[in-house]
Amino acid sequence: MASFFGIGVGPGDSELLTIKAVNVIKKLDVLYVPQAHKGGKSVAEKIAAPYLPNTLIIKKRHFPMVKDWNIKIESWRKIADEIKDDVRNSQNVGFLTLGDPSVYSTFSYIADMLKQDIDVQTIAGISSFSQIAASLSIPLMLDEESLEIVPATADEDKLTKVIELNDNVIIMKIATNFKQVYQLLQERGLLEKTIVVENASMATQKVRRLADYSLGDNLPYFTTALLKKKEG
Amino acid sequence: MASFFGIGVGPGDSELLTIKAVNVIKKLDVLYVPQAHKGGKSVAEKIAAPYLPNTLIIKKRHFPMVKDWNIKIESWRKIADEIKDDVRNSQNVGFLTLGDPSVYSTFSYIADMLKQDIDVQTIAGISSFSQIAASLSIPLMLDEESLEIVPATADEDKLTKVIELNDNVIIMKIATNFKQVYQLLQERGLLEKTIVVENASMATQKVRRLADYSLGDNLPYFTTALLKKKEG
Repeated sequence: MASFFGIGVGPGDSELLTIKAVNVIKKLDVLYVPQAHKGGKSVAEKIAAPYLPNTLIIKKRHFPMVKDWNIKIESWRKIADEIKDDVRNSQNVGFLTLGDPSVYSTFSYIADMLKQDIDVQTIAGISSFSQIAASLSIPLMLDEESLEIVPATADEDKLTKVIELNDNVIIMKIATNFKQVYQLLQERGLLEKTIVVENASMATQKVRRLADYSLGDNLPYFTTALLKKKEG
Repeated sequence: MASFFGIGVGPGDSELLTIKAVNVIKKLDVLYVPQAHKGGKSVAEKIAAPYLPNTLIIKKRHFPMVKDWNIKIESWRKIADEIKDDVRNSQNVGFLTLGDPSVYSTFSYIADMLKQDIDVQTIAGISSFSQIAASLSIPLMLDEESLEIVPATADEDKLTKVIELNDNVIIMKIATNFKQVYQLLQERGLLEKTIVVENASMATQKVRRLADYSLGDNLPYFTTALLKKKEG
């Protein structure tokens, strides 16, 4: 029986795919990838490149990055219909996601559209926040501590509560709302306690304290921050 | 140069190690493992068994499971000293952790004792909560949502806040404080919205709603719950 697989490729280093992800990729017939800018490859496709079979059919599709949900859902629906046809024609179809497919991924929406009709499998991946802690050899959390993961695009009230109530906070995609996050942490004297990792596990990885940045800085898209109030 | 490696082996399925973890394991000289009950192998050792080199020296050490921090730290310190000697004698030393070494792991303490003296590397692993979402093909979080991860052993006030303030909550090791967690969720009408996964990705994996359990049930140690208030 053919299936549709959402496959986590981890944050950047091709060695951070799981054995399972590599084994699944090797038996794929078709791979759907987002149409990258300037005709290049998507980041997830580059990470998985060492494992892609020669015979793989790659279908580049446009995933609109817009705020209008109707436009997004309509284009996902069209892609989901294509995927459904492929799987019903006995093709194993893959969809790569950066990091972990269960963490803020478009795959979740497409899987939800298809679950009733075809077999959908999710292959877990290493998330950027897991790799950030690993690259620094510091714990995300210990003992009775909790960890909250929040996107920088959450509203101010939510961000404030998360920052005030938790000892360990991961702020995803901090570049998309850098000024606000910077100010919220600055007002609470937490810039020194926030570690910023740009491009985790990629060749261009950089690690700095948030205190080493300025309010007006432009950060790369793949930047994640880890606030640890009780840090060693 | 030799190093000390904390290696995440994922939640149970040997295919859920990363390529990087397997490559690191293959070059280890020494592996420290917890002394399992009845002379058997630890769970993490069983998961990594397919990749362990034949020449590997396995050092079984006792990691006391007690509440007294002095006893724990003293025994970790002794093991850390042994590891330091091995690495200084040019041995690559490994320490396996179930799931992800950055998530509630003894490795974090030992790494902290050794970082100043020897090279310490952490190899990220798939956490149980990531695998739970993958096995169900449901998202941990989407869009502006946050996720909070909390151990069932946190105090009642903390557990209550986490449950009330978040749409997505992972409760780790729910078996260790099942009655309290069950009651907190029951009082808030959330038993139906909580998915319980026993032994994620192991042969004995079971998935049920918390509503299908009773207050007096005994759950396996490796049981994790996912509360999703806005589910589907």
